[in-house]
Amino acid sequence: MSYSFVSHLYCPKCAKTYSSDALINTCTCGAPLLVDYDFESAKRMFTKENLQTRKPNLWRYHELLPIKSVEHVITLGEGMTPIIDCKTTAAKMGLKRLLIKDEGQLPTGSFKARGSAVGVSKAKELGIDELAMPTNGNAGAAWSLYAARAGMKSHIIMPKDAPSITRQEVYIAGSDLRIIPGLISDAGKMIAEEAPLKGWFNVSTLKEPYRIEGKKTMGLEIAEQLNWTVPDVILYPTGGGVGLIGIYKALKELQKMGMIAEDKMPRMVAVQAEGCAPIVKAFNEGKTESEFWNNSVTSAFGINVPKALGDFLVLDAIYKTNGCAIAIDDETILADQKEIAEHEGLFVCPEGSAVYTATKRLFKSGWIKEDETVVCINTGMGIKYPETVYLPEFEG
Amino acid sequence: MSYSFVSHLYCPKCAKTYSSDALINTCTCGAPLLVDYDFESAKRMFTKENLQTRKPNLWRYHELLPIKSVEHVITLGEGMTPIIDCKTTAAKMGLKRLLIKDEGQLPTGSFKARGSAVGVSKAKELGIDELAMPTNGNAGAAWSLYAARAGMKSHIIMPKDAPSITRQEVYIAGSDLRIIPGLISDAGKMIAEEAPLKGWFNVSTLKEPYRIEGKKTMGLEIAEQLNWTVPDVILYPTGGGVGLIGIYKALKELQKMGMIAEDKMPRMVAVQAEGCAPIVKAFNEGKTESEFWNNSVTSAFGINVPKALGDFLVLDAIYKTNGCAIAIDDETILADQKEIAEHEGLFVCPEGSAVYTATKRLFKSGWIKEDETVVCINTGMGIKYPETVYLPEFEG
Repeated sequence: MSYSFVSHLYCPKCAKTYSSDALINTCTCGAPLLVDYDFESAKRMFTKENLQTRKPNLWRYHELLPIKSVEHVITLGEGMTPIIDCKTTAAKMGLKRLLIKDEGQLPTGSFKARGSAVGVSKAKELGIDELAMPTNGNAGAAWSLYAARAGMKSHIIMPKDAPSITRQEVYIAGSDLRIIPGLISDAGKMIAEEAPLKGWFNVSTLKEPYRIEGKKTMGLEIAEQLNWTVPDVILYPTGGGVGLIGIYKALKELQKMGMIAEDKMPRMVAVQAEGCAPIVKAFNEGKTESEFWNNSVTSAFGINVPKALGDFLVLDAIYKTNGCAIAIDDETILADQKEIAEHEGLFVCPEGSAVYTATKRLFKSGWIKEDETVVCINTGMGIKYPETVYLPEFEG
Repeated sequence: MSYSFVSHLYCPKCAKTYSSDALINTCTCGAPLLVDYDFESAKRMFTKENLQTRKPNLWRYHELLPIKSVEHVITLGEGMTPIIDCKTTAAKMGLKRLLIKDEGQLPTGSFKARGSAVGVSKAKELGIDELAMPTNGNAGAAWSLYAARAGMKSHIIMPKDAPSITRQEVYIAGSDLRIIPGLISDAGKMIAEEAPLKGWFNVSTLKEPYRIEGKKTMGLEIAEQLNWTVPDVILYPTGGGVGLIGIYKALKELQKMGMIAEDKMPRMVAVQAEGCAPIVKAFNEGKTESEFWNNSVTSAFGINVPKALGDFLVLDAIYKTNGCAIAIDDETILADQKEIAEHEGLFVCPEGSAVYTATKRLFKSGWIKEDETVVCINTGMGIKYPETVYLPEFEG
């Protein structure tokens, strides 16, 4: 039996198709490529019953992942992160059920492990020796450690303001690391120029088709962990937006396979920081693409992305699910980080805190209803950004 | 059916027994208390088949845990951490199989989550409102976050040299935190004096009977993950030594239940730092207890414990399994931290690195044989101690 039922790649903008055996970055039209599968064949093996006895990592979903041969799987045991029932907070708010999916419990302490595990594995299968990417920190940390595990060389460019701990992760993995002034968009331009000259595979967000397949497993897990149902609302901290696109793609795929009901999708919510909210602006203006956000700034560093290549896919998922987009100020993000820790024992990252604040605001406004089940994605551990936590002076 | 098959507490030194419903710290003789179970009854429910479909967290082993009612379980989804197959390193060494159990993938990024999840849950079941402990960092972080989740107040005393990130974790959880000059043994004396006066439950290492039951689940997981077999050798970074005692206890319990073969136990190895090696000294001298280690110092902060209350249990497990104890210098610990990251993609903590170095040394000396399977416990994430990682200056 096949390990993967990947069929081909396709462009969500111009509909052109490509082989999944070819080494490719984006469509000739410039849009990111998505991966498709033979769902009819896959569903004979990918059954609720078969899944029950598989190991608790994201490779349990291998039929819907693009790696064709199990020998190419590069793994650090990533996946099946817990969904934490936040009863104290839900009771205080008056909400039926508030669940936080804790992506901090992955290798390297962030959701980036999913995209890099699948992306690096597929790169290995395609014969890649050297990869390159710009990063706000966590992605570079994850990709460089998985690349090291795969025996690949990685080239990482990081803005100087990125969290210092992620520098250490990239350094210790033996990567070629450069720190630059400016933003991830500046780092991205450097990689785009340099990679083709040096023969490096450019694995920038959505510039290769496979990272999103790793992120997709968040959606597969949510459905399986909720016993093959979906919540009413999913809130996601949105920088590049790959996780939101991935979760939406996963749930559509499960519908195609008959694994979840066809008549219900969760309302997808993109949460951004007020200092960098291009998706929120586009949503408020009813647009299908975002504009570059000038002079962006936020302490939720992972969502400081002025213009995402997949913005049109994020907005499409929001519109199709009757979702919304909302921006939160940094001050509230940091205050709520402490509130979550005190109530629920979870030290979430600022991006995870933004999603929690958004939940409270959308509930107060009536957009989220009392009898709904809400899933918040916490994309990483709070300790990855120690700079953001105020710490008083202590005396003995 | 019962959730737990806990029967009573007993003293491993003087054999006195106690009820598991009583609030108790140590035996009247001063020794730590251990938990016993009704294994004959437990094994009707705790079967290989039943376990297969349970959730991937440590509560899957609830029959062999001390919490009697599931409502008292305080959980952040902890447990079933992956065992990473280190093929690159094993091949370089010439060893058959080198496995690292990665405890960094737990809530709060360290193995301390296990002891605190079970310890806090049992404290809640016994009606505790306030708990207190000294800490080298990670334990305080875990206990204060789990206490917050349980709605309990926690009082934490931490030496000033403890990793600064763990201060943030304790602070954000809303704990009462004090930083003092000196070592964890000094903090321990303060807690011992203050707790009884203030009515706080003292949850110092082995001063309450339940933390070890949480740590025990490492041993249960190793056996289940190796398909109900045991490895030839298990290496453990040893400060207080609760994990080593717990793993040994777990495997003895599985033998009693007939879940693993009775004729094989792994050789247990206690790994310490050269700057604080009381167990190694006692082992080399053939003693059954250790002496206080003066002026202890190591960058593997979690194992800077000059005298462990459970030293006699650690040494007993080593002697009974034909194990050993070995000390590693800080310089090699830090160099090997980078080697593991470059070869295996794992950014382990210095304590985890010490265990890896010990494996190489014991293999070189012939104590570990070519055809053996070795499990190293990495007790936490490297990013929890950013101070230990050298980082060169980078230029753009």
